[in-house]
Amino acid sequence: MTLLDHNALEDIALGATVLGTGGGGDPTLGKLMAQQAVTKHGPVQLLSLNDVPDDEWIIPTAMMGAPTVLVEKIPSGTEVLDAYRMLEQRLQCSAIATVSAEAGGVNSMIPLVVAATLHIPLVDADGMGRAFPEIQMVTPTLHGVSATPMAIADEKGNRVLLETPDNFWTERLARMTTIQMGCSACVALYAMQGKVAKKALVPGTISLAREIGHTLQTSREQKHDPIETLTTLLHGRRLCEGKITDVHRRTERGFARGEIDIAGTGRDAGSQYKVSFQNENLVFWRDGQAEVTVPDLITVVDNQTGLPITTEALKYGLRIAVLGFPCHPQWRTPEGVKLVGPRYFGYEIDYLPL
Amino acid sequence: MTLLDHNALEDIALGATVLGTGGGGDPTLGKLMAQQAVTKHGPVQLLSLNDVPDDEWIIPTAMMGAPTVLVEKIPSGTEVLDAYRMLEQRLQCSAIATVSAEAGGVNSMIPLVVAATLHIPLVDADGMGRAFPEIQMVTPTLHGVSATPMAIADEKGNRVLLETPDNFWTERLARMTTIQMGCSACVALYAMQGKVAKKALVPGTISLAREIGHTLQTSREQKHDPIETLTTLLHGRRLCEGKITDVHRRTERGFARGEIDIAGTGRDAGSQYKVSFQNENLVFWRDGQAEVTVPDLITVVDNQTGLPITTEALKYGLRIAVLGFPCHPQWRTPEGVKLVGPRYFGYEIDYLPL
Repeated sequence: MTLLDHNALEDIALGATVLGTGGGGDPTLGKLMAQQAVTKHGPVQLLSLNDVPDDEWIIPTAMMGAPTVLVEKIPSGTEVLDAYRMLEQRLQCSAIATVSAEAGGVNSMIPLVVAATLHIPLVDADGMGRAFPEIQMVTPTLHGVSATPMAIADEKGNRVLLETPDNFWTERLARMTTIQMGCSACVALYAMQGKVAKKALVPGTISLAREIGHTLQTSREQKHDPIETLTTLLHGRRLCEGKITDVHRRTERGFARGEIDIAGTGRDAGSQYKVSFQNENLVFWRDGQAEVTVPDLITVVDNQTGLPITTEALKYGLRIAVLGFPCHPQWRTPEGVKLVGPRYFGYEIDYLPL
Repeated sequence: MTLLDHNALEDIALGATVLGTGGGGDPTLGKLMAQQAVTKHGPVQLLSLNDVPDDEWIIPTAMMGAPTVLVEKIPSGTEVLDAYRMLEQRLQCSAIATVSAEAGGVNSMIPLVVAATLHIPLVDADGMGRAFPEIQMVTPTLHGVSATPMAIADEKGNRVLLETPDNFWTERLARMTTIQMGCSACVALYAMQGKVAKKALVPGTISLAREIGHTLQTSREQKHDPIETLTTLLHGRRLCEGKITDVHRRTERGFARGEIDIAGTGRDAGSQYKVSFQNENLVFWRDGQAEVTVPDLITVVDNQTGLPITTEALKYGLRIAVLGFPCHPQWRTPEGVKLVGPRYFGYEIDYLPL
């Protein structure tokens, strides 16, 4: 039985930032909440997706909102439990575990708060294998799983239960609700029985995040090249190294949108790069040409330490490397690319698998 | 036992337009829906507020949205039943009757659709004695009654259940939800037990609307002055007669806002008047001076027929009279004026009771 303790959370949070591809919200705040919960209630059991009984329910939990706000508007820690319980009550079931809808970013940590506090396991899986900005952008959507009933709770005592005809309507109604709640809220959604979850989720993402975090820490201690370590582990490659020369940023309709300009350095000197983001990094451009796009993972890291940098921490002058990693195969299907490919985000370009 | 049939609905709809003070949505569409339901399911029993047992539940039902949209986006008739049932389910109760939250405008009719279809009575009362644009603007708020749990349903199959810390939060979350649903939706809210309802509601409003409608029809047939008949019945007075010289109109944040300019005619020739509205008529201005304000009722009628004109039907050239009627005494308390007086709507003027 794998137990996740204080140190494991440290590794998972770091790995989740890499998988967050700049978005998903900085896990630091969530990590502190989860570590506090683990200190108080004891370590969390990590349950393999295969070990979830077919007819038992699991309930994903998450924070929702603009990452630029998530890092400033601190949840009290009870809203996510309220959302979880509201959904349990609606389903008239007692779920056996919670799970991450999005292992990239802060939503790797929020389910740990729930698991520790309620003394239930965390399932070793997620609904993305990365981070994405919208509710319907999960592998369960590809399997016809409904996001609703969905519970939304805030720190002011507001509770909202949604039932929608499809997951795009869930996104639309939940997004506006979240904005009204102050651009961040806690949610429980995509409740699934084990049978469905085994097909619909991406297995092993929490273990992977932990391994990424542990490897990054270790390579630094052992003076290995952390960037090489990362790209090897995730079967990806370094897309460029350079210096950030400009950051364009705006919070629009509940999202952090923008792009960074990068002047190549070292072996990339003379080239101009750009990374466009909407919460997450979506497109990597080399000299005006799109080279890597969502759903593949584009992560900006410090060029020395290999430590990931979230979009809200991007600033002029940083020496960075941009890394690309292939996404989970479920996203590479025509349905996957339609749901989360570059055209959905408004880019008139085709997805070219990394 | 009073039964409301096809003809009674005709009278109530007309009377409700007078009480709607230009807003609340034109009842015509709701009337057709209610008449269809009555034709199919039989007449609706009107239950006196005093006859509601203290420990039984009643559930107000309504449409919510911009009146300019309500007249074009026709409900299927099932969404309001969905909202009613969702709230019953949440409360785990079987309500004995529905009631109007707002007897002015279309929301005099929507509960009749519910009552006829579900074979339950309609309580002879409402939460305003008129129409108002926001959820918290009901007499139950003055008695500490919570608007939530509140159910919202649309024709696309979306269902939303709200639980909020106060009725202002209900308004905020429900308004944005309604806007996302296409600027109109059906709602069930302010569920109350008889004991509370007897204090918190305005009694007799449906009977009053029926009497207004009947009197208006009769006075036309009997060639009495319809405007005099109206002002006598409602203890009000004619504020001016004139010609509409301009209409300013905008749909903003889910509301129909604007004002009309009126050039006095007849005995009012030479004076300039203005009526400001936000769904409902809010302030009557005489030569630049506010003379009558919300919560008193300001209704624009045809100067010949006395028939009420809703804000969405106002247009250049109409020959009109503006009538003023005193509101229900509950609104004239300091708490009432704070909740729905002119300052709440952004006018720096005091309420001067008519």
